[in-house]
Amino acid sequence: MVTSDEAGVPERQLTARGRATRERIVAAAAELMAERGVASTTTQDVQKAAGGISPSQIYHYFSDKKSLVQAVIAYQAEAVLSFQTPLLSKLDSMEALEAWRDAIVDLQRERACVGGCPIGSLVGELADRDPLARAQIASSLARWEKAISDGIRAMQDRGDLDKRADPDHLALATLTALQGGLLMTQARRDTTALEAVLNVVIERIRCYATAWPPNPAETLRSDRY
Amino acid sequence: MVTSDEAGVPERQLTARGRATRERIVAAAAELMAERGVASTTTQDVQKAAGGISPSQIYHYFSDKKSLVQAVIAYQAEAVLSFQTPLLSKLDSMEALEAWRDAIVDLQRERACVGGCPIGSLVGELADRDPLARAQIASSLARWEKAISDGIRAMQDRGDLDKRADPDHLALATLTALQGGLLMTQARRDTTALEAVLNVVIERIRCYATAWPPNPAETLRSDRY
Repeated sequence: MVTSDEAGVPERQLTARGRATRERIVAAAAELMAERGVASTTTQDVQKAAGGISPSQIYHYFSDKKSLVQAVIAYQAEAVLSFQTPLLSKLDSMEALEAWRDAIVDLQRERACVGGCPIGSLVGELADRDPLARAQIASSLARWEKAISDGIRAMQDRGDLDKRADPDHLALATLTALQGGLLMTQARRDTTALEAVLNVVIERIRCYATAWPPNPAETLRSDRY
Repeated sequence: MVTSDEAGVPERQLTARGRATRERIVAAAAELMAERGVASTTTQDVQKAAGGISPSQIYHYFSDKKSLVQAVIAYQAEAVLSFQTPLLSKLDSMEALEAWRDAIVDLQRERACVGGCPIGSLVGELADRDPLARAQIASSLARWEKAISDGIRAMQDRGDLDKRADPDHLALATLTALQGGLLMTQARRDTTALEAVLNVVIERIRCYATAWPPNPAETLRSDRY
């Protein structure tokens, strides 16, 4: 988490205008870092991309590049969760889970399979050299995992999933599969791998769906686990 | 693939001593790039890490950094496949698949969950800014996927997997799950996510195992797909 002493000026002490400027810097940095990597994004690049920002202004908000990177991770986590949470909060059936998969696959296609996961694609470059960034990435992934397990647990609470299903375990596997799928999509420039792995996870969750198989011989129901 | 005109001097024209020097440069660069990222690895760093190499020697072997990056990807692909292929070529049962999973999980634990996948961890930084590197990463991943599908197909040819299983699809999902698992391991510094996702894939493959379930009521066998 970004604490006040990591940034030049604590975010909560900023005026509305200051917050808007800070936000513009972070958004520009996030876009550049996603596109070309963290190390290849200079303060000068960020300044140019944010428009009308002086170097001293950047240092006013962020004491060093690491604190800017932390703000970028927080920004990307919000972006991902604001896209994911509404979809995940509506998980109330296998069809909803499939709609979630389709929304992710469609988004990658719209982006021409460029960019990967805004959070996951930072792992390779940052995890082993910036312990604070790694911890912040891990905590963003944990929030995402929680949103998925809340969705799966809601399905279970409604009685759509058998109570023997472990929502936390399934959510962790789902997020992990999604991370692999997004990485492969970025590497391969197609969504086949993403679809394949999400389908495997969905089929696994379907094993616990109380309405599965669609036309069950009732005598088989106790044998399908 | 690295072609002769991308490197300073084509590898096949080198003497044995030249090849050894080139190999030393590539090994040093691979280690540094895995640890700190591609952009943060300078020619000077590589020169120092390889020991007793002059800058002009690096340029003798690699005309620019991109050609060095390509040699690093090729080197990492060989390292991964030389570890993976013997394990994958022995896939002849669900137990062998579980042993493969265990070998991967153990390796990550031995490495203290640092480093991620030597190939996959380059995707975030390189895929969108170096088209040749992306293509080479994709082709390395395809070779790995092929090794997995050969293993699954061998199980099928031996009659251990039902012929309705699609080895190519299952292999793609398996490699994708593994990539996600390695990324999450690097981010979280534990192997729980890796184990969770590989178990989901293995359970999916087990659905096609002809000896599954272990104590089947014979009457259920035609209903379990």
